[in-house]
Amino acid sequence: MATIAGSRRVRRTAFSEGVEAAGVKGYTVYNRMLLPTVFRSVVEDYRHLKTAVQVWDVAVERQVEIRGPDAGRLMQMLTPRDLRGMLPGMCYYVPMVDETGGMLNDPVAVKLAEDRYWVSIADSDLLLWIKGLAYGLRMDVLVDEPDVSPLAIQGPLADELAARVFGDKVRDIKFFRYGMFEFGGKDHVVARSGYSKQGGFEVYVEGSENGMPLWNALMEAGRDLDVHAGCPNLIERIEGGLLSYGNDMTRENTPHEAGLGRFCSTQTAIGCVGRDALLRVSKEGPVKQIRAIRIEGDLPPCDRAWPLMDGQRQVGQVTSAAYSPDFEQNVGIGMVRLTHWDQGTDLDVVTQAGVFPAIVHETFWI
Amino acid sequence: MATIAGSRRVRRTAFSEGVEAAGVKGYTVYNRMLLPTVFRSVVEDYRHLKTAVQVWDVAVERQVEIRGPDAGRLMQMLTPRDLRGMLPGMCYYVPMVDETGGMLNDPVAVKLAEDRYWVSIADSDLLLWIKGLAYGLRMDVLVDEPDVSPLAIQGPLADELAARVFGDKVRDIKFFRYGMFEFGGKDHVVARSGYSKQGGFEVYVEGSENGMPLWNALMEAGRDLDVHAGCPNLIERIEGGLLSYGNDMTRENTPHEAGLGRFCSTQTAIGCVGRDALLRVSKEGPVKQIRAIRIEGDLPPCDRAWPLMDGQRQVGQVTSAAYSPDFEQNVGIGMVRLTHWDQGTDLDVVTQAGVFPAIVHETFWI
Repeated sequence: MATIAGSRRVRRTAFSEGVEAAGVKGYTVYNRMLLPTVFRSVVEDYRHLKTAVQVWDVAVERQVEIRGPDAGRLMQMLTPRDLRGMLPGMCYYVPMVDETGGMLNDPVAVKLAEDRYWVSIADSDLLLWIKGLAYGLRMDVLVDEPDVSPLAIQGPLADELAARVFGDKVRDIKFFRYGMFEFGGKDHVVARSGYSKQGGFEVYVEGSENGMPLWNALMEAGRDLDVHAGCPNLIERIEGGLLSYGNDMTRENTPHEAGLGRFCSTQTAIGCVGRDALLRVSKEGPVKQIRAIRIEGDLPPCDRAWPLMDGQRQVGQVTSAAYSPDFEQNVGIGMVRLTHWDQGTDLDVVTQAGVFPAIVHETFWI
Repeated sequence: MATIAGSRRVRRTAFSEGVEAAGVKGYTVYNRMLLPTVFRSVVEDYRHLKTAVQVWDVAVERQVEIRGPDAGRLMQMLTPRDLRGMLPGMCYYVPMVDETGGMLNDPVAVKLAEDRYWVSIADSDLLLWIKGLAYGLRMDVLVDEPDVSPLAIQGPLADELAARVFGDKVRDIKFFRYGMFEFGGKDHVVARSGYSKQGGFEVYVEGSENGMPLWNALMEAGRDLDVHAGCPNLIERIEGGLLSYGNDMTRENTPHEAGLGRFCSTQTAIGCVGRDALLRVSKEGPVKQIRAIRIEGDLPPCDRAWPLMDGQRQVGQVTSAAYSPDFEQNVGIGMVRLTHWDQGTDLDVVTQAGVFPAIVHETFWI
């Protein structure tokens, strides 16, 4: 295994001190920033996430702040999801597309006010796309990256831990809603959301100087809950069918191919720059789509797209895979052509360590 | 040292097989792709780069292709460098700025034809900015990332090695010019350029399938030249004052602050979106600027911006540093306020391992 070279360009976060003290063993780079991938071991982190509570440095979810009289109009240009029903206090998962309908990101948008949004981004410089559009169309908006660092509290004991630090009111936050909660003399957005299926919160920590005090307060308050530093867990997120932009879908794919059609309302999303391109696919459906894939055998790490074959013919690819201790099988995420995407279809997957049998699985493992 | 986690999102390159076979020991991530940082050791790689010839996987220099009737106009919008004199066959180093004059990238642009350019990017998704502008302004251009993977041949024996594979004509290429050279039945752009001061070429390999055949041909042809796999070398690039976008300057900085004023002709770069914002600074000069910084002591890795202090007052920061065996001192790159940027100014630099004496150095170490 090669090590990762340090440099200012690969940014540290408001929580890096805590992450290092907790003995982080692996990193990836996400939005030009360090994202932990493993603390004790991926399997140990996985078991702990499902039974206790973890604090995650997800500061890599950088915010794009859009503010000004044209903020709402600009937001609707970015996504085929109809935003007319979105009110302050709500978070929306919003696939974002370019003029061809290709996905540029799949962020969570947070509506702070009628004229102010945060877009909590996956791994691409969405800021540059939004700035380019706003400039080109001479829109009355400010577009910038504020000093906001998300920290996630995830796991079955997340409510208990969050309540100890933010007060019992935090338990009342509904899924994909947020409230304002005080810590360190400043109000922060606390949303019921996060990149796991175990439940919990994301705290949008305003001001880097508030990062470590909150990290430490959570660790202190959760000692008897067995709180640990954690991170998005490869196994758990594949089991749960949580997609990863750049892995499971890219700019090559429409939201419909990514299985995100339920978040699109292309007919009524008037103003979306990709609307014309997506109208047909939203009506007729895509010709390939994300599927859960079960794979047999002793797999290598999935560090590249693995072709899915029907004999000599490529009919798709697997882009995420891991062994699931709970389901005692390899779980995977792939994109499969419609001729082969029915549940139970037998295929082969070509990895760097050989060919393995694969089968289209009915659902994700939840 | 933490390891780097593999995933499809952190893309492998057309040369990854060769890089792995050569025993790469460290990586960074650059444009969401793997970039080697060390093979034998940073010092051994450094000495070898200065005496022999290396082949570098710099496929992370992704290309943004801009093609169509508005390509020239769009190019000029992106940069305060006057592009009127740029002809096909030329490469230009072009600082690119947003509407505030903040740097978005510092790519090398390659003019392929009057209506066709490649922009060989540093570490930011410049594609999204250009696409956003082009869409917003309804320009008649295609903007995309083609399947082109740069490979660098660097070092004093670069001409000899390149000539053995591409023929003696390659020796005639002038600095920052390119020619078309055949390999594997396809013509490729071969430019005299590269991210070292040792001289050499960058081959813009078209078609990923041509990557490893060219890599292998160079390794084979250069055996008696002691050719080795290499990569941009931290020590050598700091000695030479080669800036790194994201390290030494960011969107916070103007090209003038980055010491790139000589590549700007703001008065005549009509159309540049940052022109209004830059006119004043281009005339009066910036209030802080890049300087060579010599530092005393046993430094830790420069993995974050190090404050430069005059007593209790911060007057700048160091963003790259390393020990130079040839100059027997720590060489660094920093940005210093104009009150303290004169040669010989004594300062302190605050690192994660303590405070060290620093001095503003007359020039880079070349």
